[in-house]
Amino acid sequence: MNKYLLDVYNPFTVEFLYGKGSTLFDKKRKDYIDFTSGIGVNCLGHGNKKLVETISKQAKKFIHLSNIYPIKTQKECAKKVAVLSGYKNMQGFFCNSGAEANEAAIKFIRKYAKNKGIKKHNIITLENSFHGRTLATLNATGQKDKQLGFEPFPNEFIYAKDLEDIKNKINKNSVAVMLELIQGEGGIKAFDKKELQNLNNYLKEKDVLFVVDEIQTGIYRTGEFLASNFFELKPDIITMAKGLAGGLPIGLMMTNKKNIFKKGDHGSTFGGNPLCTKTAVEVLNILEEKYKAKKIQNTIGLFQKELENILKKNKKLFSSKSGIGLMLGLKLKEEKKLQSLLEICLKNQVLVLKSGKDIVRFLPALNISKEEIKLGFKRFQKSLDELK
Amino acid sequence: MNKYLLDVYNPFTVEFLYGKGSTLFDKKRKDYIDFTSGIGVNCLGHGNKKLVETISKQAKKFIHLSNIYPIKTQKECAKKVAVLSGYKNMQGFFCNSGAEANEAAIKFIRKYAKNKGIKKHNIITLENSFHGRTLATLNATGQKDKQLGFEPFPNEFIYAKDLEDIKNKINKNSVAVMLELIQGEGGIKAFDKKELQNLNNYLKEKDVLFVVDEIQTGIYRTGEFLASNFFELKPDIITMAKGLAGGLPIGLMMTNKKNIFKKGDHGSTFGGNPLCTKTAVEVLNILEEKYKAKKIQNTIGLFQKELENILKKNKKLFSSKSGIGLMLGLKLKEEKKLQSLLEICLKNQVLVLKSGKDIVRFLPALNISKEEIKLGFKRFQKSLDELK
Repeated sequence: MNKYLLDVYNPFTVEFLYGKGSTLFDKKRKDYIDFTSGIGVNCLGHGNKKLVETISKQAKKFIHLSNIYPIKTQKECAKKVAVLSGYKNMQGFFCNSGAEANEAAIKFIRKYAKNKGIKKHNIITLENSFHGRTLATLNATGQKDKQLGFEPFPNEFIYAKDLEDIKNKINKNSVAVMLELIQGEGGIKAFDKKELQNLNNYLKEKDVLFVVDEIQTGIYRTGEFLASNFFELKPDIITMAKGLAGGLPIGLMMTNKKNIFKKGDHGSTFGGNPLCTKTAVEVLNILEEKYKAKKIQNTIGLFQKELENILKKNKKLFSSKSGIGLMLGLKLKEEKKLQSLLEICLKNQVLVLKSGKDIVRFLPALNISKEEIKLGFKRFQKSLDELK
Repeated sequence: MNKYLLDVYNPFTVEFLYGKGSTLFDKKRKDYIDFTSGIGVNCLGHGNKKLVETISKQAKKFIHLSNIYPIKTQKECAKKVAVLSGYKNMQGFFCNSGAEANEAAIKFIRKYAKNKGIKKHNIITLENSFHGRTLATLNATGQKDKQLGFEPFPNEFIYAKDLEDIKNKINKNSVAVMLELIQGEGGIKAFDKKELQNLNNYLKEKDVLFVVDEIQTGIYRTGEFLASNFFELKPDIITMAKGLAGGLPIGLMMTNKKNIFKKGDHGSTFGGNPLCTKTAVEVLNILEEKYKAKKIQNTIGLFQKELENILKKNKKLFSSKSGIGLMLGLKLKEEKKLQSLLEICLKNQVLVLKSGKDIVRFLPALNISKEEIKLGFKRFQKSLDELK
């Protein structure tokens, strides 16, 4: 722990100096294969030439302008997201993180409820969900242990056990259901496509907003631009962050509901600034090209094949594989082994994450090379062999 | 308004292409003197060479890493802030905006109250305050019109009229007072030094936390590193954002209270990332040098002298001048003239802001040149002459 920093993280001790693609280097120039991409943020890996050029060029022009002046790249970015997602009827609001995107969504839902004449509205989320750590998003996050000590919360959120239970929990005051389609922090659980589509239809019938938290699942993480595209859904509100600007802080809330937010209803000083939105446009252009050339899909195929081999070879350790695209998990039979496995992996120079209590989480960059995948899994297998 | 963006801002129509120092250029290469610096964000103006170099160099190494690995520049930045402010006993938490810094502070205060055994705590802020637009910071913001339509809020905040009224409002459940030392959105009102010091002492006596929101007043805006330094105060919690990384999204919450936040109590994906914290260190180094060489103080002197001349020459229009350092306001006698004055200024190629209902707000970059100041005020006077 550091004298000048609050001790909220539990960091490993290896300090990185620089990265190249999906390889990070420490002070002794030892190389580490990065299967984490900064928890799904560095979707183009480290030191991407085009991205560095875009950032340098934009920083020379200006980094930031106030939102009282129109920002061209903000419009370009919102349009690009609308076109790539196919949700062309949506309008966006830019902010600086996933938490802020969900804050914007919750604020929007409250105004929507007021306009609808619902005085004491509720929003339904899942017990095992994670929507952020600011106070309203912490209330949305169903995990009780994360809320403890940070009350008071207004009685705004109702927590459901699963998709079926959401239907039971809906009452006349329910205005929205907020959902991650693959729970990132909650154990890399992907929902069933048919069940999601049924829920989507049910919510339309009941006139309840369908809010999809795509903070970890968005920006081609599943192989499609959004997980909502993957599952062929029609959400009313979508939130994004992580990979959107390839590493720069950014958040985006989009909705198809018109005329709810009026001028002055919301705002952000940094949100939608030229540097972050210009970089986001470049990230989206690069990824769109890779998607069209089937490169992302090939990378997913290769990564998943290697992961299946690991599962096959290590049936004693793992019970199953979960997730979609490049958001994947391996479930350990004994949860007590998780922490030591992560540490052995670090020693053996391959970086992986955890999710929930017993899941090894893989969130590599979308452009990780064949060689890096091979070498990473070789080191991962070595770590499994060393695990007692 | 734009097809793909939610219509929450009221932007002027001039679109800027690039900037150099405190001059912005539109598509026709017309130059505008920037007295706004992106609402106090671009503290080193636009296209600063050293900043662009730092950003490019760091982006090549890596932009972002997860906080599960130690980030060297985060430590450096927190230390630099602690040293420059003289609050060397403080520890920081990095996030991505002023709103997130205040969210972190409110979350911290809640945990502090729980630890103290206060079950139904309250936090006192001012009626005219502005602390952010996420839901908890919106609740902290005393301006009722900004809250309307976004309820429910827990009964956590008590709003006081002024410094004296804060003392009246404190009761046994009060854990913190949160204050901007110069109200930025609330009309550029600076409090009296002696009164602030008295309040500070009173809060110490009563064992109530003194939380200073330095989001707009920090990073040499007043001529000293923090407004808390300017007024010689001893806060328990300080929040910062805007100018800290010269334009990149960043937020920082610092406190001298130890062992309140435990591991896992809070977190941020983007917060404290290498690009933003490395750039912040560079911004602080540049400004420290300018401060030591008395350059910031000279700029303040020159800017204030020009502003006084404007006031003297335009006694019919303005009643008074307010603010400190480079956070300054001119009070219009007739508030209805504010909007048209801003528009005439834009036409005459000088950018100024508003604050409250009748204040023209000036928040120039801390390194604005003598020539830019002179030219800007010439254009401002021309705009006043044209104002009907």
